[in-house]
Amino acid sequence: MNAPITTTKLGAFSEVGRLREVLVHRPDLSLQRLTPENCKALLFDDVLWVKKARQEHDVFVDALRERGVLVHSFGRLLAETVGLVEAREWLLDRRVHPGIVGLDMVDELRGWLDEMPSELLASYLVGGIARAELPFEPKGLTGMTLAPQDFVLPPLPNQLFTRDSSCWIYGSVSVNSMYWVARRPEAANVEAVYRFHPRFRDSGIPFVSPDLGTGTSLEGGDVMPIGSGTVLVGMGERTTPQAVGDLARKLFAAGEATRVIAALMPRDRSFMHLDTVFTFCDRDLVTLYPPVVDRLRTFSLRPGDGEAAVDITDEAKPFTAVVAEALGLKTLRIIATGGDRYEAEREQWDDGNNVVAVEPGVVIGYDRNVYTNTLLRHAGIEVITVEGAELSRGRGGGHCMTCPIARDAI
Amino acid sequence: MNAPITTTKLGAFSEVGRLREVLVHRPDLSLQRLTPENCKALLFDDVLWVKKARQEHDVFVDALRERGVLVHSFGRLLAETVGLVEAREWLLDRRVHPGIVGLDMVDELRGWLDEMPSELLASYLVGGIARAELPFEPKGLTGMTLAPQDFVLPPLPNQLFTRDSSCWIYGSVSVNSMYWVARRPEAANVEAVYRFHPRFRDSGIPFVSPDLGTGTSLEGGDVMPIGSGTVLVGMGERTTPQAVGDLARKLFAAGEATRVIAALMPRDRSFMHLDTVFTFCDRDLVTLYPPVVDRLRTFSLRPGDGEAAVDITDEAKPFTAVVAEALGLKTLRIIATGGDRYEAEREQWDDGNNVVAVEPGVVIGYDRNVYTNTLLRHAGIEVITVEGAELSRGRGGGHCMTCPIARDAI
Amino acid sequence: MNAPITTTKLGAFSEVGRLREVLVHRPDLSLQRLTPENCKALLFDDVLWVKKARQEHDVFVDALRERGVLVHSFGRLLAETVGLVEAREWLLDRRVHPGIVGLDMVDELRGWLDEMPSELLASYLVGGIARAELPFEPKGLTGMTLAPQDFVLPPLPNQLFTRDSSCWIYGSVSVNSMYWVARRPEAANVEAVYRFHPRFRDSGIPFVSPDLGTGTSLEGGDVMPIGSGTVLVGMGERTTPQAVGDLARKLFAAGEATRVIAALMPRDRSFMHLDTVFTFCDRDLVTLYPPVVDRLRTFSLRPGDGEAAVDITDEAKPFTAVVAEALGLKTLRIIATGGDRYEAEREQWDDGNNVVAVEPGVVIGYDRNVYTNTLLRHAGIEVITVEGAELSRGRGGGHCMTCPIARDAI
Amino acid sequence: MNAPITTTKLGAFSEVGRLREVLVHRPDLSLQRLTPENCKALLFDDVLWVKKARQEHDVFVDALRERGVLVHSFGRLLAETVGLVEAREWLLDRRVHPGIVGLDMVDELRGWLDEMPSELLASYLVGGIARAELPFEPKGLTGMTLAPQDFVLPPLPNQLFTRDSSCWIYGSVSVNSMYWVARRPEAANVEAVYRFHPRFRDSGIPFVSPDLGTGTSLEGGDVMPIGSGTVLVGMGERTTPQAVGDLARKLFAAGEATRVIAALMPRDRSFMHLDTVFTFCDRDLVTLYPPVVDRLRTFSLRPGDGEAAVDITDEAKPFTAVVAEALGLKTLRIIATGGDRYEAEREQWDDGNNVVAVEPGVVIGYDRNVYTNTLLRHAGIEVITVEGAELSRGRGGGHCMTCPIARDAI
Repeated sequence: MNAPITTTKLGAFSEVGRLREVLVHRPDLSLQRLTPENCKALLFDDVLWVKKARQEHDVFVDALRERGVLVHSFGRLLAETVGLVEAREWLLDRRVHPGIVGLDMVDELRGWLDEMPSELLASYLVGGIARAELPFEPKGLTGMTLAPQDFVLPPLPNQLFTRDSSCWIYGSVSVNSMYWVARRPEAANVEAVYRFHPRFRDSGIPFVSPDLGTGTSLEGGDVMPIGSGTVLVGMGERTTPQAVGDLARKLFAAGEATRVIAALMPRDRSFMHLDTVFTFCDRDLVTLYPPVVDRLRTFSLRPGDGEAAVDITDEAKPFTAVVAEALGLKTLRIIATGGDRYEAEREQWDDGNNVVAVEPGVVIGYDRNVYTNTLLRHAGIEVITVEGAELSRGRGGGHCMTCPIARDAI
Repeated sequence: MNAPITTTKLGAFSEVGRLREVLVHRPDLSLQRLTPENCKALLFDDVLWVKKARQEHDVFVDALRERGVLVHSFGRLLAETVGLVEAREWLLDRRVHPGIVGLDMVDELRGWLDEMPSELLASYLVGGIARAELPFEPKGLTGMTLAPQDFVLPPLPNQLFTRDSSCWIYGSVSVNSMYWVARRPEAANVEAVYRFHPRFRDSGIPFVSPDLGTGTSLEGGDVMPIGSGTVLVGMGERTTPQAVGDLARKLFAAGEATRVIAALMPRDRSFMHLDTVFTFCDRDLVTLYPPVVDRLRTFSLRPGDGEAAVDITDEAKPFTAVVAEALGLKTLRIIATGGDRYEAEREQWDDGNNVVAVEPGVVIGYDRNVYTNTLLRHAGIEVITVEGAELSRGRGGGHCMTCPIARDAI
Repeated sequence: MNAPITTTKLGAFSEVGRLREVLVHRPDLSLQRLTPENCKALLFDDVLWVKKARQEHDVFVDALRERGVLVHSFGRLLAETVGLVEAREWLLDRRVHPGIVGLDMVDELRGWLDEMPSELLASYLVGGIARAELPFEPKGLTGMTLAPQDFVLPPLPNQLFTRDSSCWIYGSVSVNSMYWVARRPEAANVEAVYRFHPRFRDSGIPFVSPDLGTGTSLEGGDVMPIGSGTVLVGMGERTTPQAVGDLARKLFAAGEATRVIAALMPRDRSFMHLDTVFTFCDRDLVTLYPPVVDRLRTFSLRPGDGEAAVDITDEAKPFTAVVAEALGLKTLRIIATGGDRYEAEREQWDDGNNVVAVEPGVVIGYDRNVYTNTLLRHAGIEVITVEGAELSRGRGGGHCMTCPIARDAI
Repeated sequence: MNAPITTTKLGAFSEVGRLREVLVHRPDLSLQRLTPENCKALLFDDVLWVKKARQEHDVFVDALRERGVLVHSFGRLLAETVGLVEAREWLLDRRVHPGIVGLDMVDELRGWLDEMPSELLASYLVGGIARAELPFEPKGLTGMTLAPQDFVLPPLPNQLFTRDSSCWIYGSVSVNSMYWVARRPEAANVEAVYRFHPRFRDSGIPFVSPDLGTGTSLEGGDVMPIGSGTVLVGMGERTTPQAVGDLARKLFAAGEATRVIAALMPRDRSFMHLDTVFTFCDRDLVTLYPPVVDRLRTFSLRPGDGEAAVDITDEAKPFTAVVAEALGLKTLRIIATGGDRYEAEREQWDDGNNVVAVEPGVVIGYDRNVYTNTLLRHAGIEVITVEGAELSRGRGGGHCMTCPIARDAI
């Protein structure tokens, strides 16, 4: 992969307009760290055959490229970024501090990383560093109490899901406050890229990141700029109403959006983000999982009269009707998860509703969701399928694995 | 598949001698019942893409056949068995009773099953029957309180692992007392086949099944007839010392074995059976997972003086040394799970140590365990790899999925 | 305590009529076995200060006696029972078998128990026997693999809740099929008493125990003979529709009841039995926990036309209305769990709705449920409070700890 | 209770010297918020009968007072503190911010709290505020999505355990970084008292709080200033080596200590703090739970040569030998948890080893730990027992419930 500098206007102006540039992360060292014992603590559901996952991901990237999408490898962007002195310093200041490794080890560790080749450093900043990999005997109490397989810097296996740690909303970007503290370094990595990498640093894109501090969180899997100045935001396990209010305010202030539709979800595991149960496939067609989407409670936020004021409406109509109306449509065409009751549960779980559109009516999804894919095809959607035997074990599909940075309006 | 009647002598006379006949079960309806919500209750770790799992299983069966193994499909054997009036009655008496469906529904259900085509009945006896599939309105309190997706007969997804519900030990067979009550119907299904199917009914093979009642359990994944009249038995979550004692007694009485080596395991999830951490690849070569096998405590049981007497020795030597000595070997060649610490944990988890030999030095294993497979190959073992992206989600490998019914001595 | 032979007619003819004889079990050895580590496996929620629990229980028994109730200590009855040769043999045959202790140890263990003083034997039959307590070196594989603190016979801490293992329903008795296999020995202990103890053996009381085999269960906490020939039965985690159907059939056949009202409950932990959310305090007054009772689905079972036929009605009216109507009342007076939302949840949890009536309008409950008790008193109920700081940790109140064997009709 | 201003020198100069002033927190509103459903999320093991817990706590306080200890009620100190304008502003700035309640509600909420009587405000700052208690209709998305029983400010039930959120170490104090983010507001409450309340504000006590940021934590239950310039610190679930290193550095810099003995514990639930398995009873006598203390790995930290340098020794000797040597003792007298194996596990669980000394040889403990208390008495310790039927449900004993702010050296 390489990341040529293009002149495409940055920004995600819809969910289904032509996708021009996208950020993905190739399965890497962080996944090689996973074991059945540590994976839950590292917030990953299962372990993967990493080499195979990488092949699946390469095929996924090829599918994007064949449709003319410029695919940025996050690992490469990060390597290019930490090749810049200022950027490396900015990021290491945030990632390598005494709270992580103790006072006694921090200078030696930092010194090693300061001098490290950029590719390797980028690999470690996502993949983590095990105590056994240090080229020096780690000092201090922290160093002495680490077992060889313990991590000095933690692996970030969820960096794979570039959708979450940042999201582009029309002409602005949000670097997100992750729900789990253990995922916050993902956002730091991304922010370094946006702040310092040549593709982004001079673009003048406003940051609209919610920053209300401890306890508030927002993740990109919940955020969808659907067009017509409207942004959908799910509020489930990962995204709080506090953050949504703050995001809305910032979007309105920046003139990037005129309406936020916030959908309150049940707090269940498999429905951690709105995009696990609802994604767009075409201008007026969505795929969704009814047992959850039917239970959403919907609110509309619009700019209020005073400065920073926000008006909120508790919508009486169903979520999909509110969305249709916001888009100026009479109705949304809806394709529910396919198969019988058992199959539909499995396909939702396997990201059948988590597809990513490359242009109106063309989406990429896992081949395993045959019932849902078939229904989509019957509805006229072109479904490009990719294998996800390994990737799906991380509980994320095409939508989760992509962060669109340039997508046309519809 | 078909199951020709052969004249091969039934019995498993080693772990690595030429495999002549084996019992497997093709992924079926029972796996189609699984959902993320019900799978734990049905004692399955994950949900599968069933069609893909079936293809993987077909390839596995092909690999067996290419090596000259006669592969019996358990589903077909069961269908042929319930085609026999007496057998169908025997099995339905055990599977369909008021305790399962209530008094009011039992006759109607039984009547329907009595008349059902054999193929369909066999499918239901493993796959379960949902309330929505009944051709009648179910009567009684049980019938009235069932939801459409509730099961009248439970699915048995673990029938896939034919190793567990029965095992052939030299010239005898044990139909096993499963640890989980929910798995006991698997054993009933198998017993019907052994009792009534032409391939087995007249063979005069003695049953050595432990039958000490409630609280005792033994599963075939813990049992290995390794040759020289010796049987290894693991004692972990699934197999109790009580059952092992009973099995030993019966084997000695039947003259089928002269020594049982019992290995006490730690009670952890991933090490539910001995064969998840230890299998034979050649006459003198095993693959094993050291963190568990190194902690085994070993006992030898031998026939005692009086009738039904058993002598027990608490072995001082390590498990592998005891095994080597029993086989008349100076030492066992040992191939530990491959890869670094993280990879080895993943490969154990993915059944890297759970291979099945088709003849001395030739084993079948999952392709995903590249580090372990490579080490085995370096040691001269021919490793035939098959894909297990779906199958491995059930936490069982080639050893778990096969029940050898005719295997040569070494 | 002692257990004089009375001539009171055995049977529970209501939930609130004068209570004449009752079975309780004094906290004993079984609770002394509990540790934070083993208690969940032994199906007990917490550990207790046993001496204090015993004192609380003694006060509870005094409260019963002061109201003229003849209180039978189950431990004493069991001791008296195993003092009878035939009874001891019957019970040891069921409790001490090779499935529990292995073949090699069973004779020696049985021999020791055969000769044991009755008091001690009764204590062990509930309290369990640790390997360290054996007067002999345990033989066999089971014996050799037991750690000193492991149990040869399991402790039965839930024998404390005499309500569950058996229940008297008008002039009949049911020895119950416990949901958890680990609780089944409780029922065996009780059955021995009913079969052989002089107070019961010649009484000719019919057994109506459901006996549909594996998978079916019924526990006394779900069963209430409320009068007018009606029996309430909850169907939650512990009691299955299959068993309720069987019980109804047997009650109708024995002429003991003419209607069973079955209430389907949500399968939540804290609502394991109907009596954890609903008990009677007076002829027309109940205390209940609305969040559960409001969600009950109600069925009525009545004798049908043919032999063994049962008619079932799916009731449209709320559970309490059906109960009122069955008792010939216009309406039930209902006292919901007291306190604000947080307090009511705590008081339900602490058995605020699990009171036992000693006569119409007089109940015994824990002192800790002050809000509910106050509401009951305002409604004219006399609430005798007893301390339950320790007892309540077992998640059972006065209703759970009592098995009425003689209670008047209303 | 009241909190007279005394002239006693602040500081904890030992674990067993005469206790002169101590901080405790009377069970309050925060415990009244607990339900079986929310208690785990609020980091409390069980629900309590709050009124009874309060009585038990009052008796505990009386026992302290009878020994001449000046007992400060934290609730009262907090009320007095928020009675000061500057203090109220400082604390509300930290506790009431948009991240907690959203931007739309924050001003109205803050306005209400700004004007609130101090007693009530202090109560809410520990007890939390439910949405139903707001005197206004909460605005904004957060306000609109809260259910009546949801918390606008969270309850802090663990404020009861004043030991954890801050600790006095010789003449310095540490306001601690709690392991769980949900407990951090406890520390903010305490810090406000230390910064602004007349008893503390002018005392010039140095703060030695570790402040290494995210991921680092230290809790007072792990910290023991045992005398001779030595501080014990446990490193288990709650206290990280990073924080211990930082604390040591600050203590050495402030001249408050010359040695830190750090003990690495297994990460088990019941052993969350060092003081759950080890406390001092007399100058040379400790009570401890051997299964954990025997497995501690011990390090000594001492001031190093350069500025901020720390020398660390990995101790070969057992923990108790290192402690004895640090105190200039030949040996420590050790009283292990009492009773048989089952009882000892229960008494550790019930805080049998978590006693607080009021002077050398005199400790306060729960009455329920009769075996351990008896052993202590046989060793010459005066054990003042208090009831803890309710208090012990929170999994903390006398040591956990006290924060000594003035204790003599030995």
